[in-house]
Amino acid sequence: MHNKYLVTDEWRIIENRWNPELHQGSESLFSIGNGFMGQRANFEEDYSGQSLQGSYLGGVYYPDKTRVGWWKNGYPEYFAKVLNSVNWIGIRFEINGEILDLAKAKVLDFHRELNMQEGVLYRNFKVELSSGLSFKAEVSRFISMQRKEIGAIQYSFQVEGGDAEVKVTPYLDFDVVNHDSNYDEKFWEGISQTADETSSQVKARTRKLDFEVSAATQFKLLENGTAFSANSESSSRDKYAESCLTFKAHEGSIYQLQKFAAICSSFHFGKEMLDQKAKDLAAEATELGFEALLKEQKSDWTRRWEQSDIIIDGDAEAQQGIRFNIFQLTQTYTGEDARLNIGPKGFTGEKYGGSTYWDTEAYCLPFYMASAGKEVARNLLVYRYNHLPKAIENAEKLGFTNGAALYPMVTMNGEECHNEWEITFEEIHRNGAIAYAIFNYTRYFGDETYLAEYGLEVLIGIARFWAQRFNWSEAKQQYVMLGVTGPNEYENNVNNNWYTNYLAKWCIEYAAEVYKKVEANDPSALERIKSKANFNSTAELEHWQEITAKVYLPSDAEKGIVLQQEGFLDKEQRMADDLPIEERPINQHWSWDRILRSCFIKQADVLQGFYFFEDHFSEEELRRNFEFYEPRTVHESSLSPCVHVVQAAKLNMMDKAYEMYLRTSRLDLDDYNREVHEGLHITSMAGTWLSVVEGFGGMRVKNGQLHFNPRLPEHWHSLSFKINFRNSVLQIELSNSNHKIEKLSGEPVEVLVHGETISL
Amino acid sequence: MHNKYLVTDEWRIIENRWNPELHQGSESLFSIGNGFMGQRANFEEDYSGQSLQGSYLGGVYYPDKTRVGWWKNGYPEYFAKVLNSVNWIGIRFEINGEILDLAKAKVLDFHRELNMQEGVLYRNFKVELSSGLSFKAEVSRFISMQRKEIGAIQYSFQVEGGDAEVKVTPYLDFDVVNHDSNYDEKFWEGISQTADETSSQVKARTRKLDFEVSAATQFKLLENGTAFSANSESSSRDKYAESCLTFKAHEGSIYQLQKFAAICSSFHFGKEMLDQKAKDLAAEATELGFEALLKEQKSDWTRRWEQSDIIIDGDAEAQQGIRFNIFQLTQTYTGEDARLNIGPKGFTGEKYGGSTYWDTEAYCLPFYMASAGKEVARNLLVYRYNHLPKAIENAEKLGFTNGAALYPMVTMNGEECHNEWEITFEEIHRNGAIAYAIFNYTRYFGDETYLAEYGLEVLIGIARFWAQRFNWSEAKQQYVMLGVTGPNEYENNVNNNWYTNYLAKWCIEYAAEVYKKVEANDPSALERIKSKANFNSTAELEHWQEITAKVYLPSDAEKGIVLQQEGFLDKEQRMADDLPIEERPINQHWSWDRILRSCFIKQADVLQGFYFFEDHFSEEELRRNFEFYEPRTVHESSLSPCVHVVQAAKLNMMDKAYEMYLRTSRLDLDDYNREVHEGLHITSMAGTWLSVVEGFGGMRVKNGQLHFNPRLPEHWHSLSFKINFRNSVLQIELSNSNHKIEKLSGEPVEVLVHGETISL
Repeated sequence: MHNKYLVTDEWRIIENRWNPELHQGSESLFSIGNGFMGQRANFEEDYSGQSLQGSYLGGVYYPDKTRVGWWKNGYPEYFAKVLNSVNWIGIRFEINGEILDLAKAKVLDFHRELNMQEGVLYRNFKVELSSGLSFKAEVSRFISMQRKEIGAIQYSFQVEGGDAEVKVTPYLDFDVVNHDSNYDEKFWEGISQTADETSSQVKARTRKLDFEVSAATQFKLLENGTAFSANSESSSRDKYAESCLTFKAHEGSIYQLQKFAAICSSFHFGKEMLDQKAKDLAAEATELGFEALLKEQKSDWTRRWEQSDIIIDGDAEAQQGIRFNIFQLTQTYTGEDARLNIGPKGFTGEKYGGSTYWDTEAYCLPFYMASAGKEVARNLLVYRYNHLPKAIENAEKLGFTNGAALYPMVTMNGEECHNEWEITFEEIHRNGAIAYAIFNYTRYFGDETYLAEYGLEVLIGIARFWAQRFNWSEAKQQYVMLGVTGPNEYENNVNNNWYTNYLAKWCIEYAAEVYKKVEANDPSALERIKSKANFNSTAELEHWQEITAKVYLPSDAEKGIVLQQEGFLDKEQRMADDLPIEERPINQHWSWDRILRSCFIKQADVLQGFYFFEDHFSEEELRRNFEFYEPRTVHESSLSPCVHVVQAAKLNMMDKAYEMYLRTSRLDLDDYNREVHEGLHITSMAGTWLSVVEGFGGMRVKNGQLHFNPRLPEHWHSLSFKINFRNSVLQIELSNSNHKIEKLSGEPVEVLVHGETISL
Repeated sequence: MHNKYLVTDEWRIIENRWNPELHQGSESLFSIGNGFMGQRANFEEDYSGQSLQGSYLGGVYYPDKTRVGWWKNGYPEYFAKVLNSVNWIGIRFEINGEILDLAKAKVLDFHRELNMQEGVLYRNFKVELSSGLSFKAEVSRFISMQRKEIGAIQYSFQVEGGDAEVKVTPYLDFDVVNHDSNYDEKFWEGISQTADETSSQVKARTRKLDFEVSAATQFKLLENGTAFSANSESSSRDKYAESCLTFKAHEGSIYQLQKFAAICSSFHFGKEMLDQKAKDLAAEATELGFEALLKEQKSDWTRRWEQSDIIIDGDAEAQQGIRFNIFQLTQTYTGEDARLNIGPKGFTGEKYGGSTYWDTEAYCLPFYMASAGKEVARNLLVYRYNHLPKAIENAEKLGFTNGAALYPMVTMNGEECHNEWEITFEEIHRNGAIAYAIFNYTRYFGDETYLAEYGLEVLIGIARFWAQRFNWSEAKQQYVMLGVTGPNEYENNVNNNWYTNYLAKWCIEYAAEVYKKVEANDPSALERIKSKANFNSTAELEHWQEITAKVYLPSDAEKGIVLQQEGFLDKEQRMADDLPIEERPINQHWSWDRILRSCFIKQADVLQGFYFFEDHFSEEELRRNFEFYEPRTVHESSLSPCVHVVQAAKLNMMDKAYEMYLRTSRLDLDDYNREVHEGLHITSMAGTWLSVVEGFGGMRVKNGQLHFNPRLPEHWHSLSFKINFRNSVLQIELSNSNHKIEKLSGEPVEVLVHGETISL
């Protein structure tokens, strides 16, 4: 079913033959980035075959006019999209008048490699041109982790079969399109462009919101390691600048074009200084040279891997899978800027517009907490704090009052971008994930200062929303929640979705609990918050308590399970395994009403609830619910399998756990869903991390202590990883029979393995 | 709240001053048509103000590319739209070099009148031109009821204040746009065009489906009643032809331009003969002359009114309202061609694309049965019979099998055009209305031959759909229907909508009953049908019985009502009267989720069910349900109030009945919903007829006999109308204290008034 063409290697993603039909997928897989910008693995030289040209800058987005079939009140008028930005990698080659283009030349040899240990993309190839000459190249490219604006390319090449007249044209091109533009509009307009024999610069502005970006390059041409001057002709036009270098290439000589690019946006710098800044940074990088930048890059990645690596001994595919996931997560978000977040496709494609979803809070946070540390995790939380006023506005638009906050389903700047009523207005559980992330952060770091500083305000807004969203049912004499869509998006507009009701109830209780904590620990902060939020503590807290005491939670006593939603057992009960293979995935084969009526589950929200609130339920309850819901789950969300790994491992259903693990960890590498050409599933990669560390490693934080209950797939000899936990860094090595825990730095700490305390 | 600017008159719609801001609404209200084509009341001369130019031909449509926000499997790729077609009315006037344009000239006098008795649109006006001259005109226009392709205009005018150089330019223009085009495309491409001093002709083709239309005109210029020749200059370009007639107009003379147009489409004629046919028909009309055509028109309408008029003595507004409704219905559909049907806006606008909805079967059929007779009504049924194969295909697309048929929500040629999942896939009660129409027709005409000839095949397809759409609930031990939208579109994707479940159960039972009737009366027809439908009678009939015996129908014993859907009483219960006026209509002020969660009802589908199946319920049951659902109904569907009139009158709630009656009968005349500029609510006009005849007249057909239980608003002296019933035509006159029933023609018949038999 899925697509295996990559070489299995523990540290590298390798493609060792030329597969034009897979190239667009490889462009996604071999993407590079540094948390501030990203670049798909497009070729530097011209390529006329199937390709998705993509270069993205964090924070620089465009409010594309929404496309709607039937308008409903409350729909947003635009969808904020991460922008396809300047093509800074472009180098055109002309050999004896023939443009180098791998779609046209005869490819004799091709090797592409993403070295995850170094953070560098390599490519070697050899082609035969129609003139009979051969052209051989070795290309190295990276985006600097240390220097957020810098990308560097070294393009080495030689001509075989005779001397040749070569034109090498490094260029900058802002005349790019977003493939997902709703009305085929171009989003950039040019401001200025210049080029000379060693540099070029182009500046452009977005047609809306007036983001400005200046890209500057410098380049060097070398023959056998020595710089030389070619005949140079520079030219520029709107949004474009190039320098055409012409020379006679001698057979036997090795030529190199080194290209250093600096891309500065008004998201980070004042507009008046953009051009100068970009020029200076490009000059600085050029001065330093390719080798020095590369060395810096490698050492930066070495340091990052020391913090975040996971070693799986005994399963090279699983090893490659988990490293690929960690690598891409690290490239996507580094946590240095609280205005940035993690788009479902990161910087690897345009689908989902690069915007923020609840994925961040529900799936990504634990990875960044354990691997990147407290400041990074805190910035993810502050991102939502900063959006609180917009979340309050958003709730007002839907008729809520009194500071109730509804965070958007999809957002760039805090405003809602999505427009399907069953999602935009009804998939409101996202609000709960944002509260849960505050709880999760506080539990993990044991740091309650965040609550007084930022957390409580957010929690009050969210609790107010839920308190208004429940309504009293005279018929049931309980509070019900009507018309919601749970994380299982294969049900729309249902009543009393268990997950949403449970989470909402918990949110209100947690907000009240935090209120009391802040009251006790930081009364002056409380006064500030109460006054800002106009919070009438007595009345509101009482009202909250009245609600949470009487929330309706659907269940079936006979089966001993909670019910995904009221009426779930009215459905025809079938098992996913009984679905004919040609009807899967059902979202590509069934009409929407048929999916909605069926019992099949895209991702099991009951189990998501059991995952979040594990301690509220006995293992027996988990088992009954898992055994009921798992067989009905078709996992057509990339976020689905990871939770099943964690729970299957806990229940010692190791075959199921491993099956689910492969599905999540190699989702993109093996292209399970046949969509890798659109970009990578970045946020679900954090789910993979969860499935290893919490699933097989059995890691939990309880009462301020780390617990491990390792349960590994049988053929895994051991599983090793590092954990930043509070003020310590721990090296964990687990196997089914043994464990070794070391403290690498920090304060003394106690860790429990299978319930047994180890003091470090 | 609503907008009253028309003069109340029993036979005429009159606007007696110039209201440019209301002109686009008047263009709708004063529309004329003949069931084959229609024309909005656009001006003949140029008009640069706000206007919706509209000329529509029955059956000539365009598959416009669908606009969708988020695509779902099963959505159609196009939306069939009635096409804005050739502008045949155009006559440009230039007086001393100044173009006549009521948006620019000073309007001294303006009178527009739709004479419903005659079927003619009149307009008189006088304007002062910038030159100081006055221009005075009297225009008469009609579309011939007798000659389906013919429209005629007599434009009389005079110049005051001096002689003037006048250019009169009759033209034909196919370069028209649909204002509702999804991607601003033009739908016509030109084929040919010619013009000379007395005629013009333009032929064009639709860019998809290759409909061809040829329009031919002839025109005559008269001075004081005598034809004369002006200086003529003809010209044409793609999709356009004109003849410019120039002459010196003398003050004191009356000039007339008579323009006769014939419009022939390939929907009715072979393409090879279109030009000749149009030319011949235009010549024939010209030969006959304006006066003779007008006389023919008046006598045709006299005959139609004799069949269909309703006289309300004592209430001029109500009188005008009901006549307006009857007039527009008659103009929209004459029942001569079973390929045509009734679009929600008829030929008066573009909204809803001129396509067919369930409105036809649920609301329009009774009017045409009683007023237009059996053949016309039968053609409405045959329309759906002819679409049966497409309905089966449509069901297959959604996963149904074995000849199950799902009729589309919106259609032109039998294919589904709508694309909102909650409507397209879920508002399936429409299927039941189509079965109900067969029952209603048979009950009314007492003619069961239709069942063997056409009806049973349709009923089998529909019953099969419902039998598959119900599913067995283990939990309830009953058959349930999940995920539907009822006629109350303010609930989406609900479980066990009472109306849909009840109707579906009835459909299956009725199909089985008809099967047995045909088996008994026409065994050879049955064999043909069984073989064509591959109907396994024993197994399927048994299965149907098994289902209908165990259909779940939600109800509340304590309140003694049926439940709109399962869980309805979990909602917060509020009354429509308690809604703040500034929040109404809620569909313009509330977000969609808020509407869905609320108890407010767009149109009460429980009451629709009680209307269809009145005999199944006691008056006490009706009262309890009416008293529960009516106060929750916001009537934001134009199809809502009529049913409430019928039921309120039956329950002797005469104030409510009259309030609802005004709302339905003068919906467009008084522009209750502020949308008359988009066109008229044609199908709801049939609801108005229902509300008079069945509501105040209390007419029912029971056991093959006509019953009347008149209950009139107090200030109505009497209500009179004619009814075609089986082989008799009856003249009915009813008041609260008296009645007078006459047989005008046909066989002896018994009629019951207040339960008392009258033999005629």
